[in-house]
Amino acid sequence: MDKNWNKLRQDFPILAEKMNGEPLVYLDNAATSQKPKSVIEAITAFYQKENANIYRGTYALSAKATEAYEGVRQKAADFIGGEASEIVFTKGTTSAINLAAFGYFLRHLKAGDEIALTAAEHHSNLVPWQQVAALTGAKLVFLPLDKKGRVDLKEAEKVMSDRLRLLALAQVNNVLGTEQPVKELAALAKKRGALVLVDGAQAAGHLPVAVKKLGADFYAFSAHKMLGQTGTGVLYGRKELLDQTQPLEFGGEMIREVSKTTATFKPAPQKFEAGSQNVSGVVALGAAIDYLNAIGLDAIKDRETELGQAMAEGLRKAGARVYGQGGGIASFNLPGVHPHDLATALDAQGIAIRAGQHCAQPMMDWLGVKAVARASAAFYNNEADVEALIKGVQAAKEFFNGTR
Amino acid sequence: MDKNWNKLRQDFPILAEKMNGEPLVYLDNAATSQKPKSVIEAITAFYQKENANIYRGTYALSAKATEAYEGVRQKAADFIGGEASEIVFTKGTTSAINLAAFGYFLRHLKAGDEIALTAAEHHSNLVPWQQVAALTGAKLVFLPLDKKGRVDLKEAEKVMSDRLRLLALAQVNNVLGTEQPVKELAALAKKRGALVLVDGAQAAGHLPVAVKKLGADFYAFSAHKMLGQTGTGVLYGRKELLDQTQPLEFGGEMIREVSKTTATFKPAPQKFEAGSQNVSGVVALGAAIDYLNAIGLDAIKDRETELGQAMAEGLRKAGARVYGQGGGIASFNLPGVHPHDLATALDAQGIAIRAGQHCAQPMMDWLGVKAVARASAAFYNNEADVEALIKGVQAAKEFFNGTR
Repeated sequence: MDKNWNKLRQDFPILAEKMNGEPLVYLDNAATSQKPKSVIEAITAFYQKENANIYRGTYALSAKATEAYEGVRQKAADFIGGEASEIVFTKGTTSAINLAAFGYFLRHLKAGDEIALTAAEHHSNLVPWQQVAALTGAKLVFLPLDKKGRVDLKEAEKVMSDRLRLLALAQVNNVLGTEQPVKELAALAKKRGALVLVDGAQAAGHLPVAVKKLGADFYAFSAHKMLGQTGTGVLYGRKELLDQTQPLEFGGEMIREVSKTTATFKPAPQKFEAGSQNVSGVVALGAAIDYLNAIGLDAIKDRETELGQAMAEGLRKAGARVYGQGGGIASFNLPGVHPHDLATALDAQGIAIRAGQHCAQPMMDWLGVKAVARASAAFYNNEADVEALIKGVQAAKEFFNGTR
Repeated sequence: MDKNWNKLRQDFPILAEKMNGEPLVYLDNAATSQKPKSVIEAITAFYQKENANIYRGTYALSAKATEAYEGVRQKAADFIGGEASEIVFTKGTTSAINLAAFGYFLRHLKAGDEIALTAAEHHSNLVPWQQVAALTGAKLVFLPLDKKGRVDLKEAEKVMSDRLRLLALAQVNNVLGTEQPVKELAALAKKRGALVLVDGAQAAGHLPVAVKKLGADFYAFSAHKMLGQTGTGVLYGRKELLDQTQPLEFGGEMIREVSKTTATFKPAPQKFEAGSQNVSGVVALGAAIDYLNAIGLDAIKDRETELGQAMAEGLRKAGARVYGQGGGIASFNLPGVHPHDLATALDAQGIAIRAGQHCAQPMMDWLGVKAVARASAAFYNNEADVEALIKGVQAAKEFFNGTR
């Protein structure tokens, strides 16, 4: 189906805004996505008409809010191919990975066990494992990457020992946009008795996700990177693993029985959701999933890849060094120009990109650079945005080279 | 100043809604507050015009979002009389208390140390301490309550030993609305070398809070209970204590330096805010504080107390047993009628109250009941709401007594 992508842009109010007096060209979607009207309206409608705290509410408004909240649990499960009982709502991907790290792996790893990562991990899928390793005596091993930042299966197999107990990796890398061969790697890891945790922050909402097919035992993602609200995310965990995962926060609603000195907890996923939850964030996630499903994740993936490729090609032609491109993400540098200066020059032209280490210092080391500029397109970007970026980079190049 | 309270009702869109075909009488404000237009519009405006991820953004939109986010840190600090560097944004009160419990006290308490609580604590200020006690060998002691659920200072002093290292209590109780003599208790606790953590979930937004005057070393509160969004809260901690508090979540933005195997962290409060934060929730908290400040917390306290007293009086006249009333909160039972049945009967009349244990099982034990009905008024309720409640309870009484 040939989507009318430009028509979809009208659903995103912020795209009509200006930045520094120029029409906004938003190409920082890997940091956070913009929101369609339907998501904004879902939040507004919730607070204008439906707001109530969930559970235990002995009135219609609360029952309706509870139904909405639990309905999104089912919707999120369907979105990634899990069961509602396997969906834990969290503050975001980072909280989700930390819950798996400290709630499950801290208690199930021991000295000498191995955790396999890659040098391409975002800090949120690296630092928790450093901490777990330090506390358990487990060892971090890094799977070699090929030139595109992809894990090489043959090389990976050499590094995976029989002590491997966890493979933790991002499905899509946040700097180069590289999609990892998760399914194949998961199979290799499982042969050695390891569990698999997938950081889906850059994947969910950008391609179809099927956790069971991927072989993911845990899968983490954020709502705000896929059209939803800030402060909301999901940890998917296989039921039997969530049952063995210890809650990290204790309080109301996760309790079965409490005396003054002891407490017992509800089953998963409720035991992980202590206190009042981000109900409007969850409701907005539901609206975001509806919006994404209406377009179709395959179409979104194709469209974002098309825009990403066009950016990479144009940037190369403009004299940039492109470190990698995958989906809507392309990372690059302009020789002789610091990426921050480049981003600032683009900012003046209304173009929003990100420059820096992208919470991925080891990836910078691997690339052999201090920082890169990253442009990340979403399906609601268009060819005009790509053109603006290329022209902006060309103008910056001329400016910094003193040729104008 | 005699406020035009009824005029303020127009600021709250949900108050014009119906429930079960009857005009909504929302008296479950202790569970969650409703939101004024200015807060809803702040959220909408953020997503329509200003949404960007914060920090490291090398463009105007991100810089503006960062400024908004950090501006609310200062605003929240001013709201409770702390410094911006002492404000940690969390998911809510529960997360805030858990952060103090596991990030600080778990590492600073030892076997034989004592933690003083009351039987009036919400589970969120009880179960974390049970866990910390179990892990450290510290002992929970409970300060005796007088008939009103208030800690008796003389009795408290008898229970506080020289081993006391922490006093953790709610400033306002969530079942009876009782305000504790926190300042006096804090002084007693400090004499014994203890720190003081105050659960401000039912206090913030309902009365003026001054953490330094209270003697609170840690103070926790939720945005959603004071006109803000769900999924946002604050942990205030004295600077030197936050410096000694270990982060519980690890990821982007809380990192100073990362190699493949090690990481160092930023100073507080940034080290506690790993990953993308709930930016719109924080922005909405700022709008909520502005709204509350414009009315004035003293005026809000007086108005809510006035409504709470009117409810308690009317309920007593209607034959209910009132267990306690403080601020806008009144808890009660109708003899012979299960509170859930009562709440359901009120629901049919459009009246939203809560019935159950209110995440306070020890308080139920202390009251000698299995459950209570709780009506909780906010400043945007009015005399008509109180009247509707009383009439509703009277009607329920007649119905359940079979007299009609």
